[in-house]
Amino acid sequence: MNGAESLIRTLVDAGVDHCFANPGTSEMHLVQAIDGTTGMRPVLCLFEGVCSGAADGYGRMTGRPAATLLHLGAGFGNATANLHNARRAGSPIINLVGDHARHHVAFDAPLTSDIEGIARPFSAWVRTSRSAMGLARDGADAVTAAMTPHPVSTGQIATLAIPVDCAWGEGSGPVAVPQPQRPATVSGDRIEVVARQLDAKTLIMLDGSGLSAAGQMAAARVAAATGCQVMAVTFPARTEQGPGLPPLARLPYFPEQVIKTLAGVRRIVLAGAEAPVSFFAYPTTPSDLVPNDCDVLRLALLQEDVVGALEDLATAVGAPVHPPQLNAVQRPEGITGALDTRKAAAVIAATLPEQAIVAVDSGGGGAAAVPCQTAAPHTWLNLTGGAIGMGAPLAAGAALACPDRPVLALLGDGGAMYTNQAFWTQAREGLKVGTVIFSNRQYKILEHEYRRLGVNEVGGRAASLFDIGGPDIDWPALAGSMGVPGSRVDTAEGLAAAIERGFESDGPFLIEAMI
Amino acid sequence: MNGAESLIRTLVDAGVDHCFANPGTSEMHLVQAIDGTTGMRPVLCLFEGVCSGAADGYGRMTGRPAATLLHLGAGFGNATANLHNARRAGSPIINLVGDHARHHVAFDAPLTSDIEGIARPFSAWVRTSRSAMGLARDGADAVTAAMTPHPVSTGQIATLAIPVDCAWGEGSGPVAVPQPQRPATVSGDRIEVVARQLDAKTLIMLDGSGLSAAGQMAAARVAAATGCQVMAVTFPARTEQGPGLPPLARLPYFPEQVIKTLAGVRRIVLAGAEAPVSFFAYPTTPSDLVPNDCDVLRLALLQEDVVGALEDLATAVGAPVHPPQLNAVQRPEGITGALDTRKAAAVIAATLPEQAIVAVDSGGGGAAAVPCQTAAPHTWLNLTGGAIGMGAPLAAGAALACPDRPVLALLGDGGAMYTNQAFWTQAREGLKVGTVIFSNRQYKILEHEYRRLGVNEVGGRAASLFDIGGPDIDWPALAGSMGVPGSRVDTAEGLAAAIERGFESDGPFLIEAMI
Repeated sequence: MNGAESLIRTLVDAGVDHCFANPGTSEMHLVQAIDGTTGMRPVLCLFEGVCSGAADGYGRMTGRPAATLLHLGAGFGNATANLHNARRAGSPIINLVGDHARHHVAFDAPLTSDIEGIARPFSAWVRTSRSAMGLARDGADAVTAAMTPHPVSTGQIATLAIPVDCAWGEGSGPVAVPQPQRPATVSGDRIEVVARQLDAKTLIMLDGSGLSAAGQMAAARVAAATGCQVMAVTFPARTEQGPGLPPLARLPYFPEQVIKTLAGVRRIVLAGAEAPVSFFAYPTTPSDLVPNDCDVLRLALLQEDVVGALEDLATAVGAPVHPPQLNAVQRPEGITGALDTRKAAAVIAATLPEQAIVAVDSGGGGAAAVPCQTAAPHTWLNLTGGAIGMGAPLAAGAALACPDRPVLALLGDGGAMYTNQAFWTQAREGLKVGTVIFSNRQYKILEHEYRRLGVNEVGGRAASLFDIGGPDIDWPALAGSMGVPGSRVDTAEGLAAAIERGFESDGPFLIEAMI
Repeated sequence: MNGAESLIRTLVDAGVDHCFANPGTSEMHLVQAIDGTTGMRPVLCLFEGVCSGAADGYGRMTGRPAATLLHLGAGFGNATANLHNARRAGSPIINLVGDHARHHVAFDAPLTSDIEGIARPFSAWVRTSRSAMGLARDGADAVTAAMTPHPVSTGQIATLAIPVDCAWGEGSGPVAVPQPQRPATVSGDRIEVVARQLDAKTLIMLDGSGLSAAGQMAAARVAAATGCQVMAVTFPARTEQGPGLPPLARLPYFPEQVIKTLAGVRRIVLAGAEAPVSFFAYPTTPSDLVPNDCDVLRLALLQEDVVGALEDLATAVGAPVHPPQLNAVQRPEGITGALDTRKAAAVIAATLPEQAIVAVDSGGGGAAAVPCQTAAPHTWLNLTGGAIGMGAPLAAGAALACPDRPVLALLGDGGAMYTNQAFWTQAREGLKVGTVIFSNRQYKILEHEYRRLGVNEVGGRAASLFDIGGPDIDWPALAGSMGVPGSRVDTAEGLAAAIERGFESDGPFLIEAMI
C-alpha cells in the first residue's frame, strides 16, 4: 500500500468522509487512493476558495473536519480567504496540499512555491511530509491537530504538504487516530466569582457553544434570576435561533453603535466570547469598545465547556428551571410592494422552512436575523472573518453535512461574485440550497464608509470603485450558466413566491432580489 | 496633504498610471487620494485574482508596474495565484495592501492578518509602512524595487502594507523616484567563450528579451553562421511572433518529449533562459532534463541585456546581417467541419488580426502558437507559473496597456472558471478582447496525467474529479451575465465567422468552441 492510500484510509478511519477537491498533477496518487477507498466522498469545486468555504460549512455543522485537496502553493493561495474565515469560525479543516517530489524542489520548476510559508498565517498546524512511510502518521497528526481545542477557536486548521514521492512510495498502511480531547470543564471557583457579579448592569456575551440551544437556555435562566443582560457577539460562527429559544440580541457592528449599546454596562461576562473591539480602526473612535468603567470577567474560553459553565452558573444563582420568555411563532404577514432590505428580511422570515440552515455573507442578508427568531427553528451561520465570498461555498458544505435540512444562503451581490463557482458544485451535487442575492449593484458598505471619512462629494473615480453595475450582473443567467435555475424579483410577494417555489424542488435555486 | 495622497502622487509621478482595485474599508483614504489625483486610472475588478492577473498583463506589455489595491491579508490571498504567475513572468507589480491602523492590530479584530507573512512567498520586496510621513518614501522604494532587475526576473513584485493611520495622517507630499537601473551589459569575454562553442550540436535557448523581435533576429543570424539550433523555453512570458521573424520552435512540455528533443545536443547556451527542468516530477523520468553529456553555458541572465549579448555574439561569429529564413505569410485556408483542437488552432491562425496580443492559459490554446507564426505579426503571452486562471485577467491588463491592439484570449474551460469575474471588467472598460473557450468539459490534462500513473480503469470517484461537465457550463450565458456577448460554435467555419464578427465590434466578446 503506497503512502497516498495509507493516508486516505487513515483519514476515513478517523471519520473524515468528505474531500472538497481541485487536484492537479501532483495530487494524482491521492486521487487514485480516493478512487480506491470507499468512505470518502470527493466533491469537485471549480475554484479552491469554494473548497475551503465548503469545508468550513461542513465543519461548523458536524464539528468534524472535512479534507480539502489543493494543488501546491498556488492552489492553497486561492483557498486562503475562506480559510481566514474558517479560522475565525473555529472550524476544523484538514488541507491536503500536493507538492513537488522532495528531490524536485531544488530545480525551481514553475509551480515551485513555499507552501509552508503560505500556509502558516492561515493554519494552526503545518507540516511537510518527509517520507512515504510516515505520511499516514502525518495525516493522523493532522486530524488530532484539527480536533484540538485552541485558545481562540474550537477547532483548528491543519495543513499537510505532501511531496508526491511520499504519495507514490511504499507507505505504512493506515494509522489509528486517538479520540479527540473533550473541552475542559470550568472550575467551580470561577463560576462562584462570576455568580457574585451578576446584576442589571452586567452583560453576558455569548459565542461558540454558548450559542447552542442549551447555552442560550442556560444564559436566559441566569438572566431571569439576576436581571443581567445577554447578547451574542457581532459575527458568531453558528447560532441556533427560532421559536422555543429565548430572544437574543447581537452586539452591533459600527463602533459608535457598540459604545451606545454598552453605555451603562459595568461588567461584561465572557462566555465563549472575547471582549468587544472595533472591526476597523477610525480616527475618532477607540479600538477597545469596553467602557472605561466596565470590568471584564471570563466565565469560559471558547474552547472550554461553555454550556456546562453557563448551566453551573444558573445553578449557582438559583435560576428557574425554564427561562420565563421564549420566542413564539410570529411570522410576518401581508408584506407586499417594492422590495427593500427590511421587506426582504421580513419575507425571508415569513417563508423560512423548518430546520433551515441560513448562511450569510456580507451585504444585506444579516437583516433577516431578528425577524427569523420568531419564524421557524433554524441554524444561522455568519460571516466570521470579514473576507467576502464565503456564503455560497459555506452553504454547499452545510448542505452536504446535513442533507435532510434545507439551506438558505443570503448573499450580497459583491460577495457572491467572489466565489460564484460554488453554484456549479451546488448543481453538480444536487444540493437543496436556495440563494437570495441582495442585489443593489453596489459595494454599498464602501460608499457608506467613504462618507464616514467626511466626504460629501464622491468623485467619478471613487464612484467607479463602489458601483458594480455598468454592466449589471444578470444573476439568473449567471446561475443558470452553471445549472442552477434562477429568477429575478423586485416585489415582496414575488420574493415570497420564488422562495416557496424554489424549496418545492430538491435541487439548488437562486433569486436575485432587487433592493 | 495626507499620507495617502502623498503616496498616490508619488506613484503617478513615477509613471504608475493604472490601479487594479478591489478596496475595502481600510483603503478608503487611498480611494480618496485616487479620486483627487489625475493621472491614475482605477480599474475595478470583482475579485482580486483579476487585479493581479491584469497587472501582470499590463506589466508584460509596458515594462512598467501597475498598482493593485487590495484589502488586508484576505484580499492579498485572493491575488496570490496570479502573483505567482507574474513572479514567474518577471512582471513588475506594486501591491498596495491596506492594513489596520498600527494601534489596532493588537486587538486581533476579525480581519487582522499577517500580511507580511502572506506576501513574502509571492514578493521580492515587502514592507509595512511605519508612519504617514514615510508613506510616500515607501511608495517610491516600492517603485524602485518593482523596476529592479532580479536574478530570476526582469521586474519584481513589491508589496507595501499600509496601516490606515499612515494613510490618514499628515504626509510628506510626493517623493521623487530615481530612474530605474538599465540591464547590465554582458562582457566581451563571455561572448567570446560562447562564440567558440557554437556548432550543429549547440542549442541556444531564448527567454525574456531574447524573445523580442531583435533577440530572435540576432539568434537566427548566429544560427545561420554556425549551424546551431535556436529554441524558446516551454512557457515564455512574452514572445513576438509572425511573418518577418524567424521560425522558432519551443521546448515541449512532457519530460520524455524534452529528452527526445535534446538527444544529440552537446551544448546548451542560455540567453535569458534557465536550463530545462521537468515541470512536474515523475517516478521514471529525471528532474534535470539536460542530457548527461551536454554542457550548459550562460550567455546572458534574464535580467541582463540579452539582446545586446545576442547581437555581440552574431558579430563575433561573423553572422550575416539578415537571417536567411523568415516566416512568410501563409494563413491556413479552407478549414471546415467539426472542430477539434488542431482545427481550432488553424482557424485562429487564419483569422488572427494584425498586431494582436494573444493571451493563453492552460488547455488547448497553446496549440495555435505554431500556425500563428505564419499568420499576422502578434505578441504571444503565455501561462508562466502553472497556476490556471491567468488568461482572462491577463488579456484585460494587456488591452488596457495597448488600447490600439486587439487582444485574443485562448482559454481552457477549467482555467477560465477560476477568474471568470475578468469578463465583467472587460465589459466595464469596453476592452477589445475576444475570448475563445476551448470547451471539452474536462480537466483533460489531469485524466492524461492520471493514465500516466499506469491506471487503465478510471473509477467513478476519480472520474468525477476530471469531469467538469454535469452540469455543463453554458459559457455564452456566463459571459452574457457579465455584459460580454457570447456564442457557441462546433465547426471550423463557425469559429472563423465568430472571430471575424467579434473583432468587428470595439468591445469584448466570447466564443465557446466545442472541441
